[in-house]
Amino acid sequence: MTDPFIRAFEDAGCEGPLAGLRLAVKDLFDLAGVPTGAGNPRWLETHATPVNDAAAVARLRAAGARVVGKTITDELAWSLNGTNAHYGTPENPAAPGRVPGGSSSGSASAVALGLADIGLGTDTGGSIRVPASYCGLYGLRPTHGRVSLEGAVPLAPSFDTAGVLARDAATLRLAMGVLLEGAAAAGPITRLLAPQDIWDEIPEATRAAVMPKVEALGLVVDREPLFDSGTEPGPLEAARVAYATLQAWEAWQQHGAWIEEHRPEFGPGVAVRFANAATIGNTDIAAAQRVRSGMMSLVQDRLPEGTALAIPAAPGPAFKIGDAPNREAIVRLTCIAGLAGAPGLAVPAGTVEGLPVGLQLVAAPGGDEALLALA
Amino acid sequence: MTDPFIRAFEDAGCEGPLAGLRLAVKDLFDLAGVPTGAGNPRWLETHATPVNDAAAVARLRAAGARVVGKTITDELAWSLNGTNAHYGTPENPAAPGRVPGGSSSGSASAVALGLADIGLGTDTGGSIRVPASYCGLYGLRPTHGRVSLEGAVPLAPSFDTAGVLARDAATLRLAMGVLLEGAAAAGPITRLLAPQDIWDEIPEATRAAVMPKVEALGLVVDREPLFDSGTEPGPLEAARVAYATLQAWEAWQQHGAWIEEHRPEFGPGVAVRFANAATIGNTDIAAAQRVRSGMMSLVQDRLPEGTALAIPAAPGPAFKIGDAPNREAIVRLTCIAGLAGAPGLAVPAGTVEGLPVGLQLVAAPGGDEALLALA
Repeated sequence: MTDPFIRAFEDAGCEGPLAGLRLAVKDLFDLAGVPTGAGNPRWLETHATPVNDAAAVARLRAAGARVVGKTITDELAWSLNGTNAHYGTPENPAAPGRVPGGSSSGSASAVALGLADIGLGTDTGGSIRVPASYCGLYGLRPTHGRVSLEGAVPLAPSFDTAGVLARDAATLRLAMGVLLEGAAAAGPITRLLAPQDIWDEIPEATRAAVMPKVEALGLVVDREPLFDSGTEPGPLEAARVAYATLQAWEAWQQHGAWIEEHRPEFGPGVAVRFANAATIGNTDIAAAQRVRSGMMSLVQDRLPEGTALAIPAAPGPAFKIGDAPNREAIVRLTCIAGLAGAPGLAVPAGTVEGLPVGLQLVAAPGGDEALLALA
Repeated sequence: MTDPFIRAFEDAGCEGPLAGLRLAVKDLFDLAGVPTGAGNPRWLETHATPVNDAAAVARLRAAGARVVGKTITDELAWSLNGTNAHYGTPENPAAPGRVPGGSSSGSASAVALGLADIGLGTDTGGSIRVPASYCGLYGLRPTHGRVSLEGAVPLAPSFDTAGVLARDAATLRLAMGVLLEGAAAAGPITRLLAPQDIWDEIPEATRAAVMPKVEALGLVVDREPLFDSGTEPGPLEAARVAYATLQAWEAWQQHGAWIEEHRPEFGPGVAVRFANAATIGNTDIAAAQRVRSGMMSLVQDRLPEGTALAIPAAPGPAFKIGDAPNREAIVRLTCIAGLAGAPGLAVPAGTVEGLPVGLQLVAAPGGDEALLALA
C-alpha cells in the first residue's frame, strides 16, 4: 500500500494571504513552461524553456497570487527608461505620452493600468524605484539577498534584487511579506535624514512636489548633508561612477560570453553600455570597490536603526517618449541603496505639472519591514 | 506604446465551474514543468520534462480546478489491477487490503481517500470503470475522441480515452462537462438493456448486489440477450479476444521501438503482455477487426438513442493484494464499450461482503451526457 501520489503539490488556490491578487511577472523570471525572453529576442531563441517557476514566482503563487502574464522588460534589465527597441514602450497611464520607466516597465505599466495587483520586478540600479516614481506606484527594492533570485536572469549579481510594485502600500506589504527571507531589523523609523547636499541638486519643481510628503510623515527631519566634503566632482557623482563601473563590469562577466557567441541585436543605449562594459579594467574596479566600501560604511553610520534617508526617487517625472533622459542624474539618486545593498522604498509623493514623482526612503540593510510600515 | 504583456494568460483562479475542486492527475498526462513517468522509471528517465499542460489538464485548470498532484498509474496504463511493481499499490479505502484497480489507480485512490475531488484518468480497456467499481466511485469513459488526449502518453490510440473519477455524480458531471467536446446525442435514457446472456456469466453475489441498482433506476428493463448465438467460445469471449489482440498490437506499434531501445524493466504482467504483443500477426489483426466492426454495428442496433446497456462494471469486488485476478472475465465486461468507441459510465451499485461493486451503463457513441444525466 502506498500514497496515491507520485508527486504532490498545490496549484495556487483560493486561500493564502495573496488569494485573489493578480500577479504580473517581469520577463526576467522563469515561469514553468513559458519561455524567458529577458527583453531580447536572441535571448529567447538561445535559452531552453524553463521547467520550474523562479523562486519568487513560486512563493507568490503558493501564497495564492494568480499569474496573469509575463511583462516587457528593458533588454537584460539594463535601462531605467522602459523603451524596449524590440517589444515597445508599455503605456504609462499616469503620464500619457511619456515613458513608464524601466527596467520593470511592463510590470509597472500592468499594475498602473489595473491589469495586475502585484508587479514582480527587479532593481539593480533603480529598476523598481524609477518606474514606481514615474507611474505613481509603490515599489520596494529589498535589502540585497533577502529575496531569492533563483530562476531570474542576472544583470549584476552583487546589486541585483527582486521586489514588487503595487498601487497601494497594503498590497506591497502583503506581497513583500511573502517574499522577504531572513531577519528584519527591529524597530520603527522615527527620524528622516533629508540631506541638504542631495536635495540641492534636485530641480526646484521636484523639490516642491516631494518635500511636503517628507514633512507629512510627521517624523523628525534632519537636513544635515550626507557627505562631508564638497570636492569636485562631488562624492555623489563619485558614487554614481563607482556604481556604473562595478555594475557594468559584472554585467559583462555575466553576459559577455553569450553576447560574443550569439551577437544579439540591442537597442542603442544598451548596445553602447555593453560595448563600454567590455573595456573596464582592473584599476577602475579597485577604485570603485573602495568607493563602494565607503558608501556601505556611510549608510551604516548615518542611517542607524530608526533612521531612513529621504530623497526623491527620481530627479523629475517621466520624460516624453523620444526625449533623452539625464541618466546620470537619475542614477545618482538610486545608487546609494544599490552600493550599500540597502532597501529602497518608492512611494507616490506629489506631482510636477500633473505628472507623478516619488519619494525614496532608504534604510540600512535589514530595514525593509520598517520602511514598509512607514508606507 | 504597447501592451505591457509579452504573454498574457491566467493561472487557475477562484472562478469557473470547477473553482475550489482539487484535481489529481494520472501520471500519463503532461503537467508543465513536471516530468511524466507513465508508471515506469525508464520512461521517466528517457523523456524530457514537458513544457505544456496536457489539453485535458489545461481545460480543467482553466475551469478553476486546482492540481494537487500527479498520481500513480499502472505501467504504460496496461493493467486493470493497480499494483505497480515500481511505485506500489495505492490504498483502496473502500476495500482495505485489496487493490484499487487500475490503471487509473492513484487517481481513484486519491479521490476515494478524499485527497482530491476530481481524478483525471484514462480508459483504454476499463482503466476508469474498473477502479471506480473497486473503490466505490463514479467514473466515465467517454465516447472515443470526445476528450482530447493531446499531451497524454498513448497505449492503444484507437481505444484510448481520457475521463474522470469522482465521489459523486454531480462532480463527475461538472468535470466531464468541461472536458467533453463535440455534439452530444439528444434525448434521455428511458430504457435499459440488461441482457440475460451477459448477466448469466456474472457470479451470483455480484448479480445480487448490482441488479437492484438497475431496477432502482425506474426505467424499462429488457433482459433479451445481446448476442444471437450461443456458439463456443461464445461471442463475448470472441469480443474480448479481438479487443486484446487489437489493443496489444497497437500498444506494440506505440512502444515497441522504445522498449527495444531502452529495455525498461516491467512488472510481471506487463512484461508478458508486451512480449506477446510483439508476436501478433496480420491474420490475427484482420480477424479481430471483423469482430470489432460487428460490435460497432451491434451497439448501434441494440442501443438506439434512449437505450443503455446495463451490466456490472466488474465481475466482482476488488481482489486481495497478492491474489491473481481473472483478467479475461473483467475484460469481457469492459471490452464492449472499448470495441464500439462507446461511452461507459460506472456508478456505485452495491456491495459484496461489504466491498463495493459498480454498475456499468453503456450508450452508443455520443451518449455521454445522457449517461451522466442518468447518474
